Amino acid sequence: MPPQAALPVARASLKGAKSLRRGNPWLYRTELAAPPDVKGPGAVVLVVDPQGNPIGQALYARRSPLALRLLTRKSPAEEPVDDAFFRRRLEASLARRAPLAGRDGLRLVHGEADLLPGLFVDRYGAGLTVQTISEGMDARKESLARMLAELTGATHVVARDDGSGRDFEGLPREARLLHGQGDARFTYHEGENRFEVDLLGDMKTGAFLDQVDNHLRAGELARGEALDLFSYHGGFALSLARTCASVLAVEQDPKAAARAKANAEANGRTNVTVENANAFDVLKRFDTEGRRFDTVVLDPPGLAKRREGLTTALRAYHELNLRALRCLKPDGLLVTCSCSGKLDRAGFEEMVLAAAADAKRPVQILERRGAGLDHPVLGGLLETEYLKALYVRAL
Amino acid sequence: MPPQAALPVARASLKGAKSLRRGNPWLYRTELAAPPDVKGPGAVVLVVDPQGNPIGQALYARRSPLALRLLTRKSPAEEPVDDAFFRRRLEASLARRAPLAGRDGLRLVHGEADLLPGLFVDRYGAGLTVQTISEGMDARKESLARMLAELTGATHVVARDDGSGRDFEGLPREARLLHGQGDARFTYHEGENRFEVDLLGDMKTGAFLDQVDNHLRAGELARGEALDLFSYHGGFALSLARTCASVLAVEQDPKAAARAKANAEANGRTNVTVENANAFDVLKRFDTEGRRFDTVVLDPPGLAKRREGLTTALRAYHELNLRALRCLKPDGLLVTCSCSGKLDRAGFEEMVLAAAADAKRPVQILERRGAGLDHPVLGGLLETEYLKALYVRAL
Repeated sequence: MPPQAALPVARASLKGAKSLRRGNPWLYRTELAAPPDVKGPGAVVLVVDPQGNPIGQALYARRSPLALRLLTRKSPAEEPVDDAFFRRRLEASLARRAPLAGRDGLRLVHGEADLLPGLFVDRYGAGLTVQTISEGMDARKESLARMLAELTGATHVVARDDGSGRDFEGLPREARLLHGQGDARFTYHEGENRFEVDLLGDMKTGAFLDQVDNHLRAGELARGEALDLFSYHGGFALSLARTCASVLAVEQDPKAAARAKANAEANGRTNVTVENANAFDVLKRFDTEGRRFDTVVLDPPGLAKRREGLTTALRAYHELNLRALRCLKPDGLLVTCSCSGKLDRAGFEEMVLAAAADAKRPVQILERRGAGLDHPVLGGLLETEYLKALYVRAL
Repeated sequence: MPPQAALPVARASLKGAKSLRRGNPWLYRTELAAPPDVKGPGAVVLVVDPQGNPIGQALYARRSPLALRLLTRKSPAEEPVDDAFFRRRLEASLARRAPLAGRDGLRLVHGEADLLPGLFVDRYGAGLTVQTISEGMDARKESLARMLAELTGATHVVARDDGSGRDFEGLPREARLLHGQGDARFTYHEGENRFEVDLLGDMKTGAFLDQVDNHLRAGELARGEALDLFSYHGGFALSLARTCASVLAVEQDPKAAARAKANAEANGRTNVTVENANAFDVLKRFDTEGRRFDTVVLDPPGLAKRREGLTTALRAYHELNLRALRCLKPDGLLVTCSCSGKLDRAGFEEMVLAAAADAKRPVQILERRGAGLDHPVLGGLLETEYLKALYVRAL
């Protein structure tokens, strides 16, 4: 008898089994007809339907409302979930990044979409950050870090498990070195621009790698006088600086603004001015003063994190977009983004077009984008998609 | 009294006036409270609301169900609609193509989205094609052709007014030279590939310029053995050939297949094989034989031209996508398109994801694209959007 036969069994409800079979890899505790008999953290369980027919193998979380995350539809005999299994999944995930071979700042593993549920890995030069937001991945993070260092040649692997996603899972927050020693400061590139990140200290996992493609694309299409709102450490601003006469970067957080300034200087972008101010206030002032730009970038932080706040958030998004459109010269370009998962693509687009109608500006929709190739969306889990970018020309 | 004061007046219904004011430039005859007193073709009229307040100036069509196409919200005194007006609009439209300056095959004017309602202009090297699908533009096409030749330096301008859009407008079909002499054969490039077009003879306006960006992007992401279905003259196939080991291009029309072959030879793409066959049959055969590809491109002609045919068309799209997904090796790339205006973006995506679920293949959504920058969509007229492309990786 193979050891896999000993896997604890989790019985899905009828609805849960159907959803798993249609491609959604998640099963909530409410969709569990009978929980598995599991004591320790990170157990792999055999998932069956109400009739006892096998569906696949999943990671079980003892405390999270999200009880199961499917790993494979194969049986324990066909595909045992051991170290070799995770190593193969990591290798496949890295291989899928082949079209981005020239980059040194990118996401290497994007959770469910890379069939590694709850595991997120970013690369910044020779440094990696690992986030685990499932109990199953959390329990394996030391061994995953070892494999990742081996497969990528990274000198440092940092656990960035200090995000709010961990609370939902009932996991403690922490940020610490899993591999390597001393400081974890690295540099990476976005096109020709070079950025510094402190993997143990910065927001999120150092930068906003999901926006790299938008930074680059905006730079290709922008021209003239540009305004970059919610600049953070200057990802958009420095890219715009390549093609624009001048860039005014606005950032409210003094530390981020100082870093944007330092990044602009380090890259010799003398046409970038950083203003430490609130974007709403700045837009209001320019609107009143009649100051106009050829290019405006709007990349606010998530204004609608929870559904309850959606109406308020939509009002804020609308105001930002309306004022940004009013600040555009004829044929000016607006690159407008939203990273609020609760605001879907259709709602976001509707809001922007309503702002355009209110501004009495006919607009051309040029492109619709999301996060880059390295942040794919799993077809069976569209609700995990969050980043939307609309490229609009105001005539 | 300025001569513009003599413009005939068209009175919009309350609903029509509201829609025009919200940014939709079209007014149907059913939304017209009182038609203008117009005898000849191509008249510019003053549009007013039921109270007589001016809304703007529009092109009037005597026979089309689409009676008015708004040109400007300004008064005849502020902005007279004369030759200088059209020239300024053409210049602005050309200037907006600055980001595509390196291209010799692109759309220069995209109708309503370029504030030139019913006028479509494509460039192929030194040759231009002009399509007019509004009576107002049709009446001006000789003078528009002269201006375009002057502004672009084109040697030939061809009227390609032989599409079905003309029937709806009650305009006769024709294809003839408006400027230049003799043959109208030109070459243009898509990236490194060179294509021949006969502007008086080929389908549509020579090629499918709306897909150029997708041809190039698919080439960047593709690899291994590729299958290109509905190849036409090889736009996708020749781009895939740059990065793939081999490309099998399938095209049912013998003339198009011969041109795809000639284009592959002329570009030295010896790894392209053209098969003159039906794409459904080929996919069915490969599915049965178990033949698998690393990359599949699906770019069928519009299968749902009218709403009545949507259910049937969806069945056909679903079959194509299901079989294409089944023909993909693990981690294979599917680039799937639809140019059916009646199938919206959400419906298209739902169909592809349903096909993936039926194929029991988890898929990553990598990118959502549409037509290129030179084919923008007017915010107030989303119903004119038609081209959708989904880039999907089947795990």
